[in-house]
Amino acid sequence: MTHTKVGIVGLGLMGGSLSLALKKLPEEYYFIGLDHNKLHCTQALKLGLVDEITLSLETLKSCDIIFLSIPVDGILSIAKQLGTLDPKCTVIDLGSTKEKISLSIPSDIRHNFVTAHPMTGTEKFGPTAAIENLYTDKVVVLCDMEKSAKHQDKVAKRLFTDIGMNIVCMGAKEHDRHAAFISHMPHALSYALANSVIKQEASQSIIALAGGGFKDMSRIAKSSPNMWEDIFRQNKSNVLEAIQSFQSELKKCQKMVENEEWDTLNEWMKEANTLHDILD
Amino acid sequence: MTHTKVGIVGLGLMGGSLSLALKKLPEEYYFIGLDHNKLHCTQALKLGLVDEITLSLETLKSCDIIFLSIPVDGILSIAKQLGTLDPKCTVIDLGSTKEKISLSIPSDIRHNFVTAHPMTGTEKFGPTAAIENLYTDKVVVLCDMEKSAKHQDKVAKRLFTDIGMNIVCMGAKEHDRHAAFISHMPHALSYALANSVIKQEASQSIIALAGGGFKDMSRIAKSSPNMWEDIFRQNKSNVLEAIQSFQSELKKCQKMVENEEWDTLNEWMKEANTLHDILD
Repeated sequence: MTHTKVGIVGLGLMGGSLSLALKKLPEEYYFIGLDHNKLHCTQALKLGLVDEITLSLETLKSCDIIFLSIPVDGILSIAKQLGTLDPKCTVIDLGSTKEKISLSIPSDIRHNFVTAHPMTGTEKFGPTAAIENLYTDKVVVLCDMEKSAKHQDKVAKRLFTDIGMNIVCMGAKEHDRHAAFISHMPHALSYALANSVIKQEASQSIIALAGGGFKDMSRIAKSSPNMWEDIFRQNKSNVLEAIQSFQSELKKCQKMVENEEWDTLNEWMKEANTLHDILD
Repeated sequence: MTHTKVGIVGLGLMGGSLSLALKKLPEEYYFIGLDHNKLHCTQALKLGLVDEITLSLETLKSCDIIFLSIPVDGILSIAKQLGTLDPKCTVIDLGSTKEKISLSIPSDIRHNFVTAHPMTGTEKFGPTAAIENLYTDKVVVLCDMEKSAKHQDKVAKRLFTDIGMNIVCMGAKEHDRHAAFISHMPHALSYALANSVIKQEASQSIIALAGGGFKDMSRIAKSSPNMWEDIFRQNKSNVLEAIQSFQSELKKCQKMVENEEWDTLNEWMKEANTLHDILD
């Protein structure tokens, strides 16, 4: 039985968890990792997330599938360095914003690429944060699939289905706006919530009262600043639009409390309740 | 073995879960419930949360301990209707704001009262939402304890300790400000987040991409509008102050993204990360 060679550029939570998910499948995989962080390389080898570490993109290019599970800037840079690729090689990037990536991949290897965004993660990072079921039952958005060749389309869809994901296809531009509302702006809120509490004089004794609601709302404020700086930069205009929409809702709430418009406030909260008719 | 008679006014999530928690203890309890919602009375009896339903406050007054697990306005009203109480009767109210309650209890029964706020809950409500471990390992804030008599102090502290809670004592005024930051304002954010997404044209396809972060942040937007209207009304000025603090942090974030001050944004996110040095 021949194995499928999988390259993983970026041995963090996303890349590491992908290896764990693929290892559960009946197919045989051989994993080659590349990461500029030496500690992450050592940890990934030790945890069995990869079989081999390489420093060379040329070595990676012998893989059947190459995952780019690194920030968007890194993806853009690797895409430019790859050069020519075998027509059967599938490159799947997992960047959190997609339009810039989709437009920047050199045209002669654009059909090798599948630009994907798995809507999953935890607030933890690095290879030690990798978990087997990170992708199970989660949504993965595949963008601009008309730009991928048939082989790559098939390989990517089969792989994401095999690890238990639900595939949604859309344009990269649409994805970036959607992601701003459903993921990027909520991260900005969580960071702002954490900071607004920390900066109170009595912060310690306020935080001592934290229940489940606050813990849930501040969980993603643990996320990596480097990763999120990159996302806010890449998706600036959509993020600003989403923050603006949120602010206008919060301002409504503030005005209703200020003016003691309790019935209107009650209606506004009832509207918010309807989210869960769709979400659950 | 004699049993302790416990009255529960308000057979919802909080009152129902309290019965389940007490039933796990070695002591024998007999529960008398009172609720203006007839369906909740039937459900509470059927679920075994109470042994008896009464419509009369006089019957309740024969209890050793009376819990008031209803909105603040209801607590204020019941406190006025109780009349005289046996010196050994302990009334524990579980209202989400405490200053107004603490000041409004008629002075001749003020020492019978313990004003408590368990920092726990779920987004669900009604007796069917009751769960056995709602209070386990959670914080309960006891307010203005110098106003409770020794017997009541002892009964309440022992009971909350027995069901596994961690007791924090503070003044009611301080509690209300703290609760605005750690619980009430985060609820306003969650409602505003839900509404900002629902009101987008492509809301269905945005919500289809929801991952764990958005689910966590929007969970408490399921909460009861009637209950939260009451809380926002009772704690108006503190809630407005907390919303203001949050808005000023979110505005900082917005400006940094707008002006592409990435290093400053990164530092701001790092500050937010430090919340979890205290919280976890």
